[in-house]
Amino acid sequence: MFVAKVTGSVVASTKVDSMVGHKLLIVEPYRIDPSDRKRLVTTGRTFVAVDTIGSGEGEYVLIVQGSSARLTPETKTLPIDAVIIGIVDTVQLDGGTVFNRKDAS
Amino acid sequence: MFVAKVTGSVVASTKVDSMVGHKLLIVEPYRIDPSDRKRLVTTGRTFVAVDTIGSGEGEYVLIVQGSSARLTPETKTLPIDAVIIGIVDTVQLDGGTVFNRKDAS
Amino acid sequence: MFVAKVTGSVVASTKVDSMVGHKLLIVEPYRIDPSDRKRLVTTGRTFVAVDTIGSGEGEYVLIVQGSSARLTPETKTLPIDAVIIGIVDTVQLDGGTVFNRKDAS
Amino acid sequence: MFVAKVTGSVVASTKVDSMVGHKLLIVEPYRIDPSDRKRLVTTGRTFVAVDTIGSGEGEYVLIVQGSSARLTPETKTLPIDAVIIGIVDTVQLDGGTVFNRKDAS
Amino acid sequence: MFVAKVTGSVVASTKVDSMVGHKLLIVEPYRIDPSDRKRLVTTGRTFVAVDTIGSGEGEYVLIVQGSSARLTPETKTLPIDAVIIGIVDTVQLDGGTVFNRKDAS
Repeated sequence: MFVAKVTGSVVASTKVDSMVGHKLLIVEPYRIDPSDRKRLVTTGRTFVAVDTIGSGEGEYVLIVQGSSARLTPETKTLPIDAVIIGIVDTVQLDGGTVFNRKDAS
Repeated sequence: MFVAKVTGSVVASTKVDSMVGHKLLIVEPYRIDPSDRKRLVTTGRTFVAVDTIGSGEGEYVLIVQGSSARLTPETKTLPIDAVIIGIVDTVQLDGGTVFNRKDAS
Repeated sequence: MFVAKVTGSVVASTKVDSMVGHKLLIVEPYRIDPSDRKRLVTTGRTFVAVDTIGSGEGEYVLIVQGSSARLTPETKTLPIDAVIIGIVDTVQLDGGTVFNRKDAS
Repeated sequence: MFVAKVTGSVVASTKVDSMVGHKLLIVEPYRIDPSDRKRLVTTGRTFVAVDTIGSGEGEYVLIVQGSSARLTPETKTLPIDAVIIGIVDTVQLDGGTVFNRKDAS
Repeated sequence: MFVAKVTGSVVASTKVDSMVGHKLLIVEPYRIDPSDRKRLVTTGRTFVAVDTIGSGEGEYVLIVQGSSARLTPETKTLPIDAVIIGIVDTVQLDGGTVFNRKDAS
Protein backbone atom coordinates (compact mmCIF):
# COMPACT_ATOMS: atom_id res chain seq x y z
CA MET A 1 0.00 0.00 0.00
CA PHE A 2 1.05 3.62 -0.20
CA VAL A 3 -0.04 6.99 1.12
CA ALA A 4 -1.54 9.31 -1.49
CA LYS A 5 -3.25 12.68 -1.57
CA VAL A 6 -6.67 12.95 -3.15
CA THR A 7 -6.44 15.91 -5.53
CA GLY A 8 -9.30 15.48 -7.97
CA SER A 9 -11.83 13.27 -9.67
CA VAL A 10 -12.67 11.69 -13.01
CA VAL A 11 -16.03 11.54 -14.73
CA ALA A 12 -16.59 8.89 -17.41
CA SER A 13 -20.15 8.50 -18.65
CA THR A 14 -19.33 5.78 -21.18
CA LYS A 15 -17.95 2.89 -19.16
CA VAL A 16 -18.13 -0.79 -18.35
CA ASP A 17 -21.59 -1.43 -16.82
CA SER A 18 -20.36 -2.63 -13.44
CA MET A 19 -18.52 0.66 -12.91
CA VAL A 20 -21.66 2.79 -12.93
CA GLY A 21 -22.12 4.59 -9.62
CA HIS A 22 -18.55 4.22 -8.39
CA LYS A 23 -16.60 7.35 -7.44
CA LEU A 24 -13.28 7.70 -9.27
CA LEU A 25 -10.68 9.88 -7.57
CA ILE A 26 -7.37 11.27 -8.77
CA VAL A 27 -4.72 10.28 -6.22
CA GLU A 28 -1.05 11.25 -6.12
CA PRO A 29 1.32 8.92 -4.23
CA TYR A 30 3.47 10.58 -1.57
CA ARG A 31 6.77 9.49 -0.12
CA ILE A 32 9.11 10.62 2.61
CA ASP A 33 11.00 13.77 1.63
CA PRO A 34 14.49 12.35 0.97
CA SER A 35 16.23 15.65 1.80
CA ASP A 36 15.13 16.07 5.43
CA ARG A 37 12.70 13.23 6.21
CA LYS A 38 10.43 15.76 7.92
CA ARG A 39 7.41 15.59 5.66
CA LEU A 40 5.70 13.76 2.85
CA VAL A 41 6.27 14.92 -0.73
CA THR A 42 4.62 13.95 -3.99
CA THR A 43 6.24 11.31 -6.19
CA GLY A 44 4.94 13.11 -9.27
CA ARG A 45 2.86 10.15 -10.29
CA THR A 46 -0.91 10.19 -10.94
CA PHE A 47 -3.34 7.31 -10.39
CA VAL A 48 -7.09 6.86 -10.37
CA ALA A 49 -8.62 4.92 -7.47
CA VAL A 50 -12.13 3.92 -6.48
CA ASP A 51 -13.38 5.32 -3.19
CA THR A 52 -15.80 3.42 -0.96
CA ILE A 53 -15.26 5.17 2.38
CA GLY A 54 -16.13 8.79 1.65
CA SER A 55 -12.70 10.32 1.04
CA GLY A 56 -12.63 13.94 -0.04
CA GLU A 57 -10.30 16.14 -2.02
CA GLY A 58 -7.28 17.27 0.01
CA GLU A 59 -7.27 14.21 2.22
CA TYR A 60 -4.40 11.75 2.52
CA VAL A 61 -5.48 8.18 2.03
CA LEU A 62 -4.15 4.65 1.97
CA ILE A 63 -4.28 2.97 -1.45
CA VAL A 64 -4.14 -0.74 -2.20
CA GLN A 65 -3.28 -1.92 -5.72
CA GLY A 66 -3.70 -5.05 -7.77
CA SER A 67 -6.10 -7.94 -7.24
CA SER A 68 -6.43 -6.99 -3.56
CA ALA A 69 -8.38 -3.90 -4.67
CA ARG A 70 -11.23 -6.38 -5.14
CA LEU A 71 -11.09 -7.55 -1.51
CA THR A 72 -13.60 -5.05 -0.13
CA PRO A 73 -17.36 -5.73 -0.03
CA GLU A 74 -18.17 -2.98 -2.58
CA THR A 75 -15.44 -3.83 -5.10
CA LYS A 76 -15.54 -7.63 -5.22
CA THR A 77 -16.54 -7.93 -8.87
CA LEU A 78 -15.24 -4.65 -10.28
CA PRO A 79 -12.59 -4.34 -13.01
CA ILE A 80 -10.40 -2.09 -10.83
CA ASP A 81 -6.79 -2.23 -9.69
CA ALA A 82 -6.71 0.49 -7.02
CA VAL A 83 -9.00 1.32 -4.12
CA ILE A 84 -8.86 3.61 -1.11
CA ILE A 85 -8.93 1.53 2.08
CA GLY A 86 -8.39 4.22 4.71
CA ILE A 87 -8.19 7.94 5.43
CA VAL A 88 -4.83 8.73 7.02
CA ASP A 89 -4.95 10.49 10.42
CA THR A 90 -1.23 10.49 11.20
CA VAL A 91 2.06 9.29 9.80
CA GLN A 92 4.83 8.74 12.34
CA LEU A 93 8.42 8.57 11.09
CA ASP A 94 11.73 8.15 12.92
CA GLY A 95 9.85 8.73 16.20
CA GLY A 96 8.26 12.03 15.12
CA THR A 97 5.10 13.08 13.29
CA VAL A 98 5.45 13.90 9.59
CA PHE A 99 1.74 14.15 8.87
CA ASN A 100 -1.27 14.98 11.00
CA ARG A 101 -4.70 15.28 9.43
CA LYS A 102 -5.61 18.02 11.91
CA ASP A 103 -2.82 20.24 10.59
CA ALA A 104 -3.63 19.65 6.93
CA SER A 105 -6.15 22.09 5.53
CA MET B 1 -6.19 2.73 -12.85
CA PHE B 2 -4.76 5.57 -14.85
CA VAL B 3 -5.84 8.04 -17.51
CA ALA B 4 -4.34 7.43 -20.96
CA LYS B 5 -4.74 8.81 -24.44
CA VAL B 6 -5.58 6.43 -27.26
CA THR B 7 -3.10 7.23 -30.01
CA GLY B 8 -3.06 4.19 -32.26
CA SER B 9 -3.70 0.52 -32.79
CA VAL B 10 -1.93 -2.79 -33.27
CA VAL B 11 -2.71 -5.51 -35.80
CA ALA B 12 -1.47 -9.04 -35.12
CA SER B 13 -2.78 -11.73 -37.43
CA THR B 14 -0.81 -14.56 -35.81
CA LYS B 15 -2.03 -14.72 -32.24
CA VAL B 16 -3.41 -16.85 -29.42
CA ASP B 17 -6.83 -18.14 -30.60
CA SER B 18 -8.87 -16.48 -27.87
CA MET B 19 -7.56 -13.06 -28.91
CA VAL B 20 -9.10 -13.20 -32.39
CA GLY B 21 -11.61 -10.38 -32.87
CA HIS B 22 -10.42 -8.19 -30.02
CA LYS B 23 -9.40 -4.59 -30.75
CA LEU B 24 -5.89 -3.72 -29.56
CA LEU B 25 -5.21 -0.03 -28.97
CA ILE B 26 -2.01 1.87 -28.32
CA VAL B 27 -2.49 3.91 -25.15
CA GLU B 28 -0.15 6.43 -23.57
CA PRO B 29 -0.55 7.07 -19.82
CA TYR B 30 -0.96 10.71 -18.83
CA ARG B 31 -0.24 12.41 -15.54
CA ILE B 32 -0.70 15.81 -14.02
CA ASP B 33 1.78 18.32 -15.44
CA PRO B 34 4.17 18.73 -12.50
CA SER B 35 5.19 22.28 -13.52
CA ASP B 36 1.81 24.01 -13.31
CA ARG B 37 -0.79 21.33 -12.49
CA LYS B 38 -3.05 22.86 -15.15
CA ARG B 39 -3.22 20.01 -17.63
CA LEU B 40 -2.42 16.37 -18.27
CA VAL B 41 0.88 15.47 -19.95
CA THR B 42 2.19 12.20 -21.33
CA THR B 43 4.39 10.02 -19.15
CA GLY B 44 6.30 8.88 -22.23
CA ARG B 45 5.26 5.30 -21.74
CA THR B 46 3.45 3.12 -24.29
CA PHE B 47 1.02 0.30 -23.54
CA VAL B 48 -1.38 -1.85 -25.51
CA ALA B 49 -4.90 -2.31 -24.12
CA VAL B 50 -8.00 -4.18 -25.22
CA ASP B 51 -11.05 -2.03 -25.93
CA THR B 52 -14.58 -3.28 -25.32
CA ILE B 53 -16.51 0.01 -25.14
CA GLY B 54 -15.85 1.61 -28.52
CA SER B 55 -12.98 3.99 -27.70
CA GLY B 56 -11.47 5.87 -30.62
CA GLU B 57 -8.13 7.42 -31.42
CA GLY B 58 -7.64 10.78 -29.71
CA GLU B 59 -9.85 9.94 -26.76
CA TYR B 60 -8.75 9.87 -23.14
CA VAL B 61 -9.67 6.66 -21.41
CA LEU B 62 -9.43 4.91 -18.08
CA ILE B 63 -7.19 1.82 -18.07
CA VAL B 64 -7.18 -1.01 -15.57
CA GLN B 65 -4.16 -3.31 -15.35
CA GLY B 66 -3.39 -6.76 -14.03
CA SER B 67 -5.79 -9.60 -13.27
CA SER B 68 -8.65 -7.09 -12.95
CA ALA B 69 -8.45 -6.58 -16.71
CA ARG B 70 -10.28 -9.91 -16.83
CA LEU B 71 -13.19 -8.64 -14.71
CA THR B 72 -15.36 -7.44 -17.61
CA PRO B 73 -17.88 -9.69 -19.40
CA GLU B 74 -15.93 -9.63 -22.69
CA THR B 75 -12.46 -10.25 -21.24
CA LYS B 76 -13.10 -12.93 -18.62
CA THR B 77 -10.97 -15.63 -20.22
CA LEU B 78 -8.51 -13.57 -22.23
CA PRO B 79 -4.73 -13.55 -21.72
CA ILE B 80 -4.65 -9.76 -21.29
CA ASP B 81 -3.32 -7.45 -18.58
CA ALA B 82 -4.84 -4.11 -19.60
CA VAL B 83 -8.33 -3.08 -20.65
CA ILE B 84 -10.16 0.19 -21.24
CA ILE B 85 -13.01 0.51 -18.73
CA GLY B 86 -14.23 4.04 -19.48
CA ILE B 87 -13.99 7.04 -21.78
CA VAL B 88 -13.00 10.10 -19.76
CA ASP B 89 -15.37 13.10 -19.98
CA THR B 90 -13.69 15.38 -17.45
CA VAL B 91 -10.79 15.41 -15.01
CA GLN B 92 -11.13 17.81 -12.09
CA LEU B 93 -7.97 18.77 -10.18
CA ASP B 94 -7.42 21.14 -7.26
CA GLY B 95 -10.97 22.38 -7.75
CA GLY B 96 -10.56 23.23 -11.44
CA THR B 97 -10.93 21.38 -14.73
CA VAL B 98 -7.73 20.06 -16.32
CA PHE B 99 -9.43 18.00 -19.01
CA ASN B 100 -12.77 18.26 -20.76
CA ARG B 101 -13.63 15.91 -23.61
CA LYS B 102 -15.60 18.67 -25.33
CA ASP B 103 -12.48 20.82 -25.63
CA ALA B 104 -10.26 18.01 -26.93
CA SER B 105 -10.33 17.60 -30.67
CA MET C 1 0.35 -5.55 -22.83
CA PHE C 2 3.27 -4.03 -24.63
CA VAL C 3 5.07 -4.37 -27.93
CA ALA C 4 8.54 -5.93 -27.70
CA LYS C 5 11.21 -7.12 -30.07
CA VAL C 6 12.44 -10.70 -29.81
CA THR C 7 16.23 -10.44 -29.76
CA GLY C 8 17.43 -13.71 -28.29
CA SER C 9 16.81 -16.80 -26.23
CA VAL C 10 17.68 -18.43 -22.92
CA VAL C 11 18.65 -22.04 -22.28
CA ALA C 12 18.27 -23.43 -18.77
CA SER C 13 18.75 -27.16 -18.39
CA THR C 14 18.22 -27.20 -14.62
CA LYS C 15 14.70 -25.95 -14.10
CA VAL C 16 11.32 -26.51 -12.48
CA ASP C 17 9.87 -29.70 -14.04
CA SER C 18 6.82 -28.08 -15.60
CA MET C 19 9.04 -25.71 -17.58
CA VAL C 20 10.74 -28.48 -19.58
CA GLY C 21 10.06 -28.07 -23.29
CA HIS C 22 8.99 -24.45 -23.20
CA LYS C 23 10.82 -21.94 -25.39
CA LEU C 24 12.23 -18.95 -23.47
CA LEU C 25 12.84 -15.81 -25.50
CA ILE C 26 14.66 -12.59 -24.69
CA VAL C 27 12.28 -9.71 -25.41
CA GLU C 28 12.96 -5.98 -25.26
CA PRO C 29 9.95 -3.68 -24.74
CA TYR C 30 9.57 -0.89 -27.29
CA ARG C 31 7.79 2.41 -26.98
CA ILE C 32 6.94 5.33 -29.20
CA ASP C 33 9.99 7.47 -29.96
CA PRO C 34 9.29 10.55 -27.81
CA SER C 35 11.32 12.86 -30.06
CA ASP C 36 9.39 12.47 -33.31
CA ARG C 37 6.69 9.82 -32.72
CA LYS C 38 7.62 8.29 -36.08
CA ARG C 39 8.91 4.92 -34.95
CA LEU C 40 9.26 2.50 -32.07
CA VAL C 41 12.40 2.61 -29.93
CA THR C 42 13.69 0.29 -27.24
CA THR C 43 13.00 1.11 -23.59
CA GLY C 44 16.34 -0.43 -22.63
CA ARG C 45 14.69 -3.07 -20.53
CA THR C 46 15.15 -6.83 -20.91
CA PHE C 47 12.58 -9.53 -20.14
CA VAL C 48 12.23 -13.24 -20.72
CA ALA C 49 8.90 -14.51 -22.09
CA VAL C 50 7.51 -17.91 -23.01
CA ASP C 51 6.55 -18.35 -26.66
CA THR C 52 3.70 -20.60 -27.75
CA ILE C 53 2.95 -19.24 -31.23
CA GLY C 54 6.22 -19.68 -33.09
CA SER C 55 7.80 -16.22 -32.76
CA GLY C 56 11.28 -15.83 -34.15
CA GLU C 57 14.24 -13.58 -33.46
CA GLY C 58 13.83 -10.12 -34.99
CA GLU C 59 10.05 -10.16 -34.79
CA TYR C 60 7.93 -7.67 -32.88
CA VAL C 61 5.46 -9.33 -30.58
CA LEU C 62 2.75 -8.56 -28.08
CA ILE C 63 3.58 -9.52 -24.48
CA VAL C 64 1.17 -10.06 -21.62
CA GLN C 65 2.46 -9.99 -18.05
CA GLY C 66 1.31 -11.22 -14.66
CA SER C 67 -1.28 -13.88 -13.86
CA SER C 68 -2.83 -13.43 -17.31
CA ALA C 69 0.28 -15.07 -18.79
CA ARG C 70 -1.35 -18.28 -17.57
CA LEU C 71 -4.55 -17.69 -19.57
CA THR C 72 -3.44 -19.54 -22.70
CA PRO C 73 -4.02 -23.28 -23.22
CA GLU C 74 -0.28 -24.09 -23.16
CA THR C 75 0.63 -22.01 -20.10
CA LYS C 76 -2.25 -22.69 -17.72
CA THR C 77 -0.20 -24.34 -14.99
CA LEU C 78 3.23 -22.84 -15.62
CA PRO C 79 5.18 -20.69 -13.14
CA ILE C 80 5.55 -17.85 -15.66
CA ASP C 81 4.71 -14.15 -15.62
CA ALA C 82 5.16 -13.21 -19.29
CA VAL C 83 3.99 -14.81 -22.52
CA ILE C 84 3.89 -13.83 -26.17
CA ILE C 85 0.26 -13.65 -27.35
CA GLY C 86 0.72 -12.30 -30.86
CA ILE C 87 3.16 -11.41 -33.63
CA VAL C 88 2.75 -7.75 -34.56
CA ASP C 89 1.99 -7.01 -38.23
CA THR C 90 1.49 -3.27 -38.00
CA VAL C 91 1.42 -0.48 -35.45
CA GLN C 92 -0.61 2.59 -36.41
CA LEU C 93 0.02 5.85 -34.54
CA ASP C 94 -1.46 9.33 -34.94
CA GLY C 95 -3.05 8.14 -38.18
CA GLY C 96 0.20 6.87 -39.74
CA THR C 97 2.15 3.64 -39.73
CA VAL C 98 5.12 3.45 -37.33
CA PHE C 99 5.77 -0.25 -37.77
CA ASN C 100 5.10 -2.68 -40.58
CA ARG C 101 6.34 -6.25 -40.35
CA LYS C 102 6.95 -6.32 -44.10
CA ASP C 103 9.47 -3.50 -43.83
CA ALA C 104 11.33 -5.02 -40.87
CA SER C 105 14.09 -7.37 -41.85
CA MET D 1 10.34 -9.98 -2.02
CA PHE D 2 12.64 -7.21 -0.89
CA VAL D 3 14.44 -6.09 2.23
CA ALA D 4 13.07 -2.90 3.80
CA LYS D 5 13.62 -0.89 6.94
CA VAL D 6 10.67 -0.17 9.19
CA THR D 7 10.82 3.57 9.86
CA GLY D 8 7.35 4.52 11.02
CA SER D 9 3.65 3.82 11.18
CA VAL D 10 0.31 5.01 9.86
CA VAL D 11 -2.91 5.55 11.79
CA ALA D 12 -6.19 5.59 9.88
CA SER D 13 -9.35 5.59 11.98
CA THR D 14 -11.75 5.72 9.01
CA LYS D 15 -11.06 2.57 7.05
CA VAL D 16 -12.51 -0.52 5.40
CA ASP D 17 -14.01 -2.66 8.20
CA SER D 18 -11.77 -5.68 7.71
CA MET D 19 -8.68 -3.52 8.29
CA VAL D 20 -9.59 -2.62 11.87
CA GLY D 21 -6.95 -3.88 14.29
CA HIS D 22 -4.19 -4.37 11.76
CA LYS D 23 -0.86 -2.61 12.31
CA LEU D 24 0.25 -0.47 9.35
CA LEU D 25 3.97 0.24 9.14
CA ILE D 26 5.97 2.62 6.96
CA VAL D 27 8.68 0.59 5.21
CA GLU D 28 11.48 1.81 2.97
CA PRO D 29 12.96 -0.69 0.49
CA TYR D 30 16.73 -1.10 0.64
CA ARG D 31 19.13 -2.30 -2.02
CA ILE D 32 22.80 -3.09 -2.29
CA ASP D 33 24.93 0.07 -2.32
CA PRO D 34 25.98 0.21 -5.99
CA SER D 35 29.19 2.14 -5.23
CA ASP D 36 30.94 -0.38 -2.98
CA ARG D 37 28.51 -3.29 -2.42
CA LYS D 38 29.42 -3.21 1.28
CA ARG D 39 26.09 -2.24 2.77
CA LEU D 40 22.39 -1.75 2.14
CA VAL D 41 21.11 1.72 1.17
CA THR D 42 17.62 3.10 0.81
CA THR D 43 15.98 3.19 -2.61
CA GLY D 44 14.16 6.39 -1.65
CA ARG D 45 10.80 4.75 -2.01
CA THR D 46 8.10 4.57 0.68
CA PHE D 47 5.51 1.82 1.15
CA VAL D 48 3.00 0.84 3.79
CA ALA D 49 2.87 -2.82 4.85
CA VAL D 50 0.81 -4.82 7.31
CA ASP D 51 2.75 -6.46 10.12
CA THR D 52 1.69 -9.77 11.66
CA ILE D 53 4.93 -10.90 13.31
CA GLY D 54 5.74 -8.08 15.74
CA SER D 55 8.22 -6.00 13.74
CA GLY D 56 9.39 -2.79 15.35
CA GLU D 57 10.70 0.53 14.12
CA GLY D 58 14.36 0.37 13.09
CA GLU D 59 14.21 -3.29 12.12
CA TYR D 60 14.96 -4.65 8.66
CA VAL D 61 12.23 -6.89 7.35
CA LEU D 62 11.28 -8.99 4.37
CA ILE D 63 8.27 -7.69 2.41
CA VAL D 64 6.07 -9.63 0.02
CA GLN D 65 3.87 -7.74 -2.45
CA GLY D 66 0.80 -8.45 -4.54
CA SER D 67 -1.76 -11.21 -4.11
CA SER D 68 0.75 -13.26 -2.11
CA ALA D 69 0.39 -10.73 0.71
CA ARG D 70 -2.87 -12.56 1.40
CA LEU D 71 -1.14 -15.93 1.82
CA THR D 72 -0.62 -15.67 5.58
CA PRO D 73 -3.21 -16.86 8.12
CA GLU D 74 -3.91 -13.34 9.40
CA THR D 75 -4.21 -11.62 6.02
CA LYS D 76 -6.21 -14.10 3.98
CA THR D 77 -9.21 -11.86 3.38
CA LEU D 78 -7.67 -8.42 3.72
CA PRO D 79 -7.55 -5.78 0.96
CA ILE D 80 -3.76 -5.44 1.24
CA ASP D 81 -0.90 -5.72 -1.24
CA ALA D 82 2.13 -5.79 1.07
CA VAL D 83 2.91 -7.72 4.25
CA ILE D 84 5.97 -8.31 6.39
CA ILE D 85 6.86 -12.02 6.35
CA GLY D 86 10.12 -12.00 8.29
CA ILE D 87 12.53 -9.98 10.41
CA VAL D 88 15.96 -9.99 8.81
CA ASP D 89 18.83 -11.27 10.96
CA THR D 90 21.62 -11.17 8.40
CA VAL D 91 22.20 -10.39 4.74
CA GLN D 92 25.20 -12.09 3.13
CA LEU D 93 26.56 -10.67 -0.13
CA ASP D 94 29.53 -11.69 -2.29
CA GLY D 95 30.66 -13.97 0.55
CA GLY D 96 30.64 -11.27 3.25
CA THR D 97 28.08 -9.82 5.64
CA VAL D 98 26.42 -6.54 4.61
CA PHE D 99 23.82 -6.51 7.36
CA ASN D 100 23.68 -8.02 10.83
CA ARG D 101 20.76 -7.29 13.11
CA LYS D 102 23.06 -7.38 16.13
CA ASP D 103 25.08 -4.46 14.79
CA ALA D 104 22.04 -2.35 13.89
CA SER D 105 20.81 -0.18 16.73
CA MET E 1 10.56 -13.39 -16.11
CA PHE E 2 14.03 -11.94 -16.00
CA VAL E 3 17.61 -13.09 -15.73
CA ALA E 4 19.30 -12.32 -12.40
CA LYS E 5 22.55 -13.13 -10.68
CA VAL E 6 22.49 -14.80 -7.28
CA THR E 7 24.81 -12.73 -5.12
CA GLY E 8 23.87 -13.54 -1.55
CA SER E 9 21.33 -14.78 0.95
CA VAL E 10 19.05 -13.62 3.74
CA VAL E 11 18.52 -15.21 7.15
CA ALA E 12 15.34 -14.38 9.05
CA SER E 13 14.68 -16.45 12.16
CA THR E 14 11.45 -14.67 13.08
CA LYS E 15 9.10 -15.27 10.18
CA VAL E 16 5.68 -16.42 9.04
CA ASP E 17 5.42 -20.14 9.94
CA SER E 18 5.02 -21.42 6.39
CA MET E 19 8.34 -19.82 5.41
CA VAL E 20 10.42 -21.95 7.79
CA GLY E 21 12.92 -24.08 5.87
CA HIS E 22 12.83 -22.10 2.62
CA LYS E 23 16.08 -20.72 1.24
CA LEU E 24 16.02 -16.96 0.60
CA LEU E 25 18.51 -15.66 -1.94
CA ILE E 26 19.59 -12.14 -2.89
CA VAL E 27 19.18 -11.78 -6.64
CA GLU E 28 20.14 -8.85 -8.85
CA PRO E 29 18.29 -8.49 -12.19
CA TYR E 30 20.52 -8.20 -15.25
CA ARG E 31 19.77 -6.66 -18.62
CA ILE E 32 21.48 -6.35 -21.97
CA ASP E 33 24.31 -3.82 -21.86
CA PRO E 34 22.76 -0.90 -23.79
CA SER E 35 26.17 0.41 -24.94
CA ASP E 36 27.40 -2.59 -26.94
CA ARG E 37 24.80 -5.38 -26.50
CA LYS E 38 27.68 -7.81 -25.94
CA ARG E 39 27.03 -8.82 -22.35
CA LEU E 40 24.59 -8.70 -19.45
CA VAL E 41 24.91 -5.90 -16.89
CA THR E 42 23.24 -5.34 -13.55
CA THR E 43 20.15 -3.12 -13.36
CA GLY E 44 21.21 -1.98 -9.89
CA ARG E 45 18.10 -3.42 -8.33
CA THR E 46 18.00 -5.94 -5.48
CA PHE E 47 15.34 -8.59 -4.86
CA VAL E 48 14.92 -11.59 -2.60
CA ALA E 49 13.69 -14.84 -4.19
CA VAL E 50 12.95 -18.32 -2.90
CA ASP E 51 15.07 -21.10 -4.37
CA THR E 52 13.74 -24.61 -4.88
CA ILE E 53 16.19 -25.98 -7.46
CA GLY E 54 19.55 -25.70 -5.73
CA SER E 55 20.90 -22.42 -7.13
CA GLY E 56 24.18 -21.19 -5.74
CA GLU E 57 25.88 -17.85 -5.32
CA GLY E 58 27.41 -16.57 -8.56
CA GLU E 59 24.92 -18.35 -10.77
CA TYR E 60 22.59 -16.65 -13.24
CA VAL E 61 19.01 -17.72 -12.81
CA LEU E 62 15.56 -17.15 -14.21
CA ILE E 63 13.13 -15.41 -11.82
CA VAL E 64 9.35 -15.38 -11.98
CA GLN E 65 7.42 -12.73 -10.08
CA GLY E 66 3.90 -12.26 -8.78
CA SER E 67 1.21 -14.87 -8.20
CA SER E 68 2.98 -17.24 -10.61
CA ALA E 69 5.73 -17.63 -8.01
CA ARG E 70 3.23 -19.93 -6.31
CA LEU E 71 2.90 -22.20 -9.34
CA THR E 72 5.66 -24.63 -8.37
CA PRO E 73 5.04 -27.72 -6.20
CA GLU E 74 7.15 -26.40 -3.31
CA THR E 75 5.74 -22.87 -3.23
CA LYS E 76 2.02 -23.43 -3.74
CA THR E 77 0.90 -22.01 -0.41
CA LEU E 78 3.76 -19.67 0.42
CA PRO E 79 3.43 -15.90 0.89
CA ILE E 80 6.10 -15.19 -1.73
CA ASP E 81 6.20 -13.09 -4.90
CA ALA E 82 9.47 -14.26 -6.50
CA VAL E 83 10.94 -17.69 -7.12
CA ILE E 84 13.86 -19.09 -9.09
CA ILE E 85 12.55 -21.40 -11.84
CA GLY E 86 15.77 -22.19 -13.69
CA ILE E 87 19.56 -21.94 -13.74
CA VAL E 88 20.67 -20.18 -16.91
CA ASP E 89 23.14 -22.07 -19.12
CA THR E 90 23.33 -19.66 -22.04
CA VAL E 91 21.83 -16.41 -23.24
CA GLN E 92 21.85 -15.87 -27.01
CA LEU E 93 21.38 -12.33 -28.34
CA ASP E 94 21.39 -10.94 -31.89
CA GLY E 95 22.71 -14.31 -33.06
CA GLY E 96 25.68 -14.42 -30.67
CA THR E 97 26.29 -15.63 -27.13
CA VAL E 98 26.24 -12.98 -24.39
CA PHE E 99 26.33 -15.40 -21.48
CA ASN E 100 27.64 -18.93 -21.08
CA ARG E 101 27.59 -20.60 -17.68
CA LYS E 102 30.84 -22.42 -18.51
CA ASP E 103 32.69 -19.13 -18.88
CA ALA E 104 31.30 -17.61 -15.69
CA SER E 105 33.35 -18.38 -12.61
